[in-house]
Amino acid sequence: MKIGIYGYGNLGKGVEYAITQNDDMELVGVFTRRDPATVNLLTDGAKAYPAADIEKFKDEIDVLVICGGSATDLPTMTPALARHFNVVDSFDTHADIPTHFARVDEAAKAGGHTALISCGWDPGMFSLNRLYANAILPQGKDYTFWGKGVSQGHSDAIRRIDGVADARQYTCPVDAAVQAVRSGAQPELTTREKHTRLCYVVAKPGADTARIEQEIKTMPKYFADYDTTVHFISQEELDAEHKGIPHGGCVIRTGKTGGNQTHVIEYSLKLESNPEFTASVLAAYARAVYRLHTRGEDGCKTVFDIAPVDLSAESPETLRAHML
Amino acid sequence: MKIGIYGYGNLGKGVEYAITQNDDMELVGVFTRRDPATVNLLTDGAKAYPAADIEKFKDEIDVLVICGGSATDLPTMTPALARHFNVVDSFDTHADIPTHFARVDEAAKAGGHTALISCGWDPGMFSLNRLYANAILPQGKDYTFWGKGVSQGHSDAIRRIDGVADARQYTCPVDAAVQAVRSGAQPELTTREKHTRLCYVVAKPGADTARIEQEIKTMPKYFADYDTTVHFISQEELDAEHKGIPHGGCVIRTGKTGGNQTHVIEYSLKLESNPEFTASVLAAYARAVYRLHTRGEDGCKTVFDIAPVDLSAESPETLRAHML
Repeated sequence: MKIGIYGYGNLGKGVEYAITQNDDMELVGVFTRRDPATVNLLTDGAKAYPAADIEKFKDEIDVLVICGGSATDLPTMTPALARHFNVVDSFDTHADIPTHFARVDEAAKAGGHTALISCGWDPGMFSLNRLYANAILPQGKDYTFWGKGVSQGHSDAIRRIDGVADARQYTCPVDAAVQAVRSGAQPELTTREKHTRLCYVVAKPGADTARIEQEIKTMPKYFADYDTTVHFISQEELDAEHKGIPHGGCVIRTGKTGGNQTHVIEYSLKLESNPEFTASVLAAYARAVYRLHTRGEDGCKTVFDIAPVDLSAESPETLRAHML
Repeated sequence: MKIGIYGYGNLGKGVEYAITQNDDMELVGVFTRRDPATVNLLTDGAKAYPAADIEKFKDEIDVLVICGGSATDLPTMTPALARHFNVVDSFDTHADIPTHFARVDEAAKAGGHTALISCGWDPGMFSLNRLYANAILPQGKDYTFWGKGVSQGHSDAIRRIDGVADARQYTCPVDAAVQAVRSGAQPELTTREKHTRLCYVVAKPGADTARIEQEIKTMPKYFADYDTTVHFISQEELDAEHKGIPHGGCVIRTGKTGGNQTHVIEYSLKLESNPEFTASVLAAYARAVYRLHTRGEDGCKTVFDIAPVDLSAESPETLRAHML
């Protein structure tokens, strides 16, 4: 199938990598709001085009993977593109998913296309595991822990503080909380008890580090509800030790069945590159979107609607013989 | 939906428990090859009937959950019943799944019914996680570890040895192997390196325990390829300490994405009752089978073919708003 990539940041590059690992996929081109001449692709022979030219490629792209941000890009981008293309996005503002779904569904149906939103690992694989675990254990309790991993949003929030040159923030699960959950005891945990926040900050020359640390630790929503540790380091150390984008976490559901028997279901991810892994999930779901469209199943979908068989390049017979 | 249970051992009892946890399910009756008068059900008002009378209930049962054994029951039971009912089974002889699938598919289609085979946790939830992880990380390596848990087959094998009164065998994953896999190093592991076998044996009075231990440790297929530990204990100790049927394990896939980044995907289960958990999975898939049948999607299916949304009692809107 022929894949287009719309947006070429870390996620878009990850999709390009993922296409090289899937023999049934081919990159048509990358569409960017930057000057295409300045964009260096990884794929031999592939080209970057102006985002504004996307509609000229209507007949050449089977699935367009939209690699924009959830805050401002995707709410308008995905509905607009779903009129003309089968699309996949990674919209991750959990509270706004129903609105985004309705808009994309209307556009995709109007255009006779298939769209899949909120794909990746959370929302995405974590959501799937919440659903499976809830269906199996109706009487139980869900927990999600994130990290240890880099939060781009929290890193950005620190960078906006006066006197900060650069910053990297790690979200860390509290090990004692994870262990308590795994025991099946179903503890009630506060925000503070579940995660800590670890910040590496480069201060500008002469900046008041005590004030910066105080501003971070008291920042509402982002840090005030957490135990936060701040380390001031040099730009060189930040660049050397903290330029990766690792992430991960786990979804745990514990519950009881009739004979008062306790069960623990856990799904966990340890990712060296958050965007490359997310992109790999998007690529697998692009395959499913293509198949659904081929079968005439148009409109907006989520990971909940996709039968696992549609994600695999292998035939149903092979899967039953070797993976079941 | 109206559920029938065909076979009333540990698994059948587990399904009965699971029905009580799912408000949209109702138990029609239990069908047994034993004298129904000797069977005590847990559900008020529910009745046990002779298995031979099952066809009289054709119009009263939406989904029949077949709780027989894979060795001799299910290969004939499931195709025979799929002609007259929508069915779910837990057929777990991995190598024979394609044959079983073909037989059940033919019968279900001939009868206009929907069947789902090889449901539970392995095959079942473990299979699903193998498929998802392979679709996301095409370049990687799969590992499955089982335990610590009771293997009924291995316990039975010990009981067949001359001089053995009772036995319980635990399959145990080797912690060092699990840790090596989790590191992403993709080790090559032999059978012996992955699992050990721990046996609690009650010898008959006067039996030669040295000979029994030797027979266990050298038994082909079951024990010879493993490091096996044998403890002789009293029947009282076995009854007091080893009457539970716990199990579990984990499916791990590690792989790399384009930028040489390593990722670890792990799904793990810790189950206090293997049959009750398996039964809970069967109940969730019975819901999906009912829905597929309602939509006219007949024939044989596996967990690979079922969209997650069909497992849940919640509406798609609720799932998107609260679980995605």
